[in-house]
Amino acid sequence: MFERNRETLDQALTAAARRGYWSAYPESPSPRVYGEGAAERGKQAFESLLGRPFPLDQPGERIGAERSPYGIDLGVTYPRTPAADLVAAARAALPAWRDAGPEARALTCVEIVRRINERSFELAHAVQHTTGQAFVMAFQAGGPHAQDRALEAVAYGYAAMTSSAASARWEKPGKGDPIVLDKRFTVVPRGVALVIGCNTFPTWNAYPGLFASLVTGNPVIVKPHPRAILPLAISVSVAREVLAEAGFDPALVQLAAEEGRGLAVELATDPQVRVVDFTGSTEFGDWLERNAAQALVHTEKAGVNTVVIDSTDSWRGMLGNLAFSLSLYSGQMCTAPQNFLVPAGGIDTDEGHKSFDEVAEGLAAAVGRLLGDDAKAVELTGAIVNPDVLARVEQAPGLGEPVLESRAVKHPAFPDAVVRTPAIVRVAPSRTDVYGHEHFGPISFVIPTASTAESLDVLRRTVTARGALTASVYSTSPAVLDEAERAALDAGVNLSCNLTGGVFVNQSAAFSDYHGSGANPAATASLTDPGYVAGRFHVVQSRRPVS
Amino acid sequence: MFERNRETLDQALTAAARRGYWSAYPESPSPRVYGEGAAERGKQAFESLLGRPFPLDQPGERIGAERSPYGIDLGVTYPRTPAADLVAAARAALPAWRDAGPEARALTCVEIVRRINERSFELAHAVQHTTGQAFVMAFQAGGPHAQDRALEAVAYGYAAMTSSAASARWEKPGKGDPIVLDKRFTVVPRGVALVIGCNTFPTWNAYPGLFASLVTGNPVIVKPHPRAILPLAISVSVAREVLAEAGFDPALVQLAAEEGRGLAVELATDPQVRVVDFTGSTEFGDWLERNAAQALVHTEKAGVNTVVIDSTDSWRGMLGNLAFSLSLYSGQMCTAPQNFLVPAGGIDTDEGHKSFDEVAEGLAAAVGRLLGDDAKAVELTGAIVNPDVLARVEQAPGLGEPVLESRAVKHPAFPDAVVRTPAIVRVAPSRTDVYGHEHFGPISFVIPTASTAESLDVLRRTVTARGALTASVYSTSPAVLDEAERAALDAGVNLSCNLTGGVFVNQSAAFSDYHGSGANPAATASLTDPGYVAGRFHVVQSRRPVS
Repeated sequence: MFERNRETLDQALTAAARRGYWSAYPESPSPRVYGEGAAERGKQAFESLLGRPFPLDQPGERIGAERSPYGIDLGVTYPRTPAADLVAAARAALPAWRDAGPEARALTCVEIVRRINERSFELAHAVQHTTGQAFVMAFQAGGPHAQDRALEAVAYGYAAMTSSAASARWEKPGKGDPIVLDKRFTVVPRGVALVIGCNTFPTWNAYPGLFASLVTGNPVIVKPHPRAILPLAISVSVAREVLAEAGFDPALVQLAAEEGRGLAVELATDPQVRVVDFTGSTEFGDWLERNAAQALVHTEKAGVNTVVIDSTDSWRGMLGNLAFSLSLYSGQMCTAPQNFLVPAGGIDTDEGHKSFDEVAEGLAAAVGRLLGDDAKAVELTGAIVNPDVLARVEQAPGLGEPVLESRAVKHPAFPDAVVRTPAIVRVAPSRTDVYGHEHFGPISFVIPTASTAESLDVLRRTVTARGALTASVYSTSPAVLDEAERAALDAGVNLSCNLTGGVFVNQSAAFSDYHGSGANPAATASLTDPGYVAGRFHVVQSRRPVS
Repeated sequence: MFERNRETLDQALTAAARRGYWSAYPESPSPRVYGEGAAERGKQAFESLLGRPFPLDQPGERIGAERSPYGIDLGVTYPRTPAADLVAAARAALPAWRDAGPEARALTCVEIVRRINERSFELAHAVQHTTGQAFVMAFQAGGPHAQDRALEAVAYGYAAMTSSAASARWEKPGKGDPIVLDKRFTVVPRGVALVIGCNTFPTWNAYPGLFASLVTGNPVIVKPHPRAILPLAISVSVAREVLAEAGFDPALVQLAAEEGRGLAVELATDPQVRVVDFTGSTEFGDWLERNAAQALVHTEKAGVNTVVIDSTDSWRGMLGNLAFSLSLYSGQMCTAPQNFLVPAGGIDTDEGHKSFDEVAEGLAAAVGRLLGDDAKAVELTGAIVNPDVLARVEQAPGLGEPVLESRAVKHPAFPDAVVRTPAIVRVAPSRTDVYGHEHFGPISFVIPTASTAESLDVLRRTVTARGALTASVYSTSPAVLDEAERAALDAGVNLSCNLTGGVFVNQSAAFSDYHGSGANPAATASLTDPGYVAGRFHVVQSRRPVS
């Protein structure tokens, strides 16, 4: 079954073990790699979905009220399948999927990813019009990069399931003949799995949990964010198509669409739901960790991503790199930097000493330059995902002393799109009430500290208390970089040093960079480490005498 | 550091991956393998500990009231170190142990196991006089078998930590020069770990959690059962000696002795305690799972171990094997069988058809024969571990229709020892209120069912609801064996088929048999599978441009 996927799986396993760079899927949305006419066909496929019931064979009354951040009502409806029906169908589908074994499951999962890849253009439009990402970013992050994370989860899940023998012959010397037993070790799934998606990265953040659970034998119920159902509905329908073709029950992957959060709560606390993956707010994540006690719960929540600026040998490179990180998707990334810690006495650079104010103003000016042209700006910022983020950015100036005001940008193609550039605010180091928690969206803080040592101390304290998905440091001193690595280890956060070129702190490459660590409150595990996959399955043994 | 342990670690890793049989340590308590005079020296070492303060350099007032089930007061006292002191010392010891890296930690852990092995005779006496096990069993289960489980945890922990690269060079083609980053991936421990030991197998059940946490970088606080402190006090003191010799802080392993449970509760709910391993009652295990919410909690609790008897081609072999399983350590094993499900219409055997009553009486007679001689009986049953078990066996006849009455046996060497043989009670299949939960100790039930199909259904239902560590089946029909394997997979319990010789359902060999599965309520994971070790550590990444 899907034997042609064996080579892909082997390559993925090698890349995962080496943490080697990997790109299974062509990244560039060009005709050369996706075939002539692929872009146009994908656009048409997306448009043909609008304004009608989404083709999905699940029971339930139709719901759906997605509105694009670019100002278009999608008008797609989805079945709101009752929780009891979802769980019952998932349970019925489990035994045959368990009995198929790790290899058949892994090869089937690779095929699902392959088919999803073929629909990358259609998915890109769906991601753009549910998240507000610009098209190219929606293509990359919502398409091949998300697919890479899916494959990574399949590779780590498969590796964990097969790290020990599936059978063994055991002999014990006895007085007469030796005692000989045949032992079989069968991977059994934990149970029904639930994946709760987020608004901003519906595919990238849902695929790891979806594929980690599925490959390890768990039927998966996919509960999208009410504002970003379409990308996951497409993904679920692809999975069901592949599963049915392979002779499995399509109920191994089901959509749990709803307009609120009630279905998520009902499913997450169902005694039969044994795995929950969640990306979103700290409030709901904490609630799940406390209340879904019957389940293994993996969450990715808010954090305070921190940049320690000590010194640099590339003043312009540093500012350009940071300005890009602040502007990309208007900072609506769980990995975007928020807190810039800079010595009050300023920093040494290749362009001479810069005062604290010069650093703050340099950052503001770099953002201004990057986003000076409206037509180019919107291709970087995309649109504001929802009213909560908009309200937050409008209130940002009141949080301290504005260094850069957010600016409303008119989108040339979508007149109703809500586009905002980043706001930067100066706050005192004593104001942990302000910068000590996440302000999701295009809002960041520059904070004068007594010294880089104090900056590292603030990093340690804030990340330990509130979590972070990223941290970065700029320094020309190896000793400071080592000290920053130590602080990052203590706080349990992934660190980027001296990024001044075309790699950004908010990017992480599957099979190479870990996303999250589990070692601070922002997430319970990494994408993807052994802790992310191992608890999703158990091993059950049988032993029989050899006659 | 301890480079000589490299070979042992490599062998252990190979055995773990193959689930191959392994015995790193000589099992037989003979002079040939442990050296001339080892038995006598071990006995003297044990006796020299009695009636005085245990040599352990930890603060706290001295407590301790261990009384041997063989009727001797041990008179050993231990420091009751306050929880805050334990946690503070553990936290201070963490960074250097983390920074030492996976290999140095693994080699140090192997050395601890090696030194513990040298003290196997001393430990055997300590285990005998805290648990009531007979000496030979105390030697094997408390010594080399426990040490094997320790090594197994080290091997799986080391394998999980090193399953991906520790560093990688990453290149991304750019317009000009490629972007080149060096990436480092550092294993960081989850935090301070707590191991809560049990009364019956103080070393065997504590070592896996202790070594799994320690090898993955977590300082470990060892909280023994108040009736079985000495074996773990010896083990902790060996670990501290090795750690100090290797230049580490001995506070990486600390003893948390107490006479009640208050210290355990205080430690388990301390925000700094991030891993808890527990073996014991379902009541306290469930409490920990709910209340130690800040920690990864692994528990091993009660269960209803089940034997399905369908048919046999070795009537005598079957009865002898089961009688041994019931009698060993008076059934005071989490793996001992409790519920015997037999068709009311009887079974086919190599000695003709046997009615239900003949099966029940045959089992009773086999136990009677095995334990007919008092002097030999006590070497198999040992003594009753505590008053709770004694009360339970005394009340057993009231639970149904007695098939075999428990008998008090006079121990020839220890006049105050409390020794009891197994009780067997017949109960109706409707009495799930009786056989549907664990009766820890020498109490088992024979239950007439309508058919083997009903027996398997009872197995599925009771194990799913209440858990089990073992299940077994006797049948000459391959179809029935297959159906039993299916029931065991559904219920998530390890199954033994047709054991009629020198392998018993209550035995599991490290590196070959899993103990527990995690797939039913009796335990959260196996000894040892990836799920048992993976959550104990995280990976934190750092990336720097290559200049």
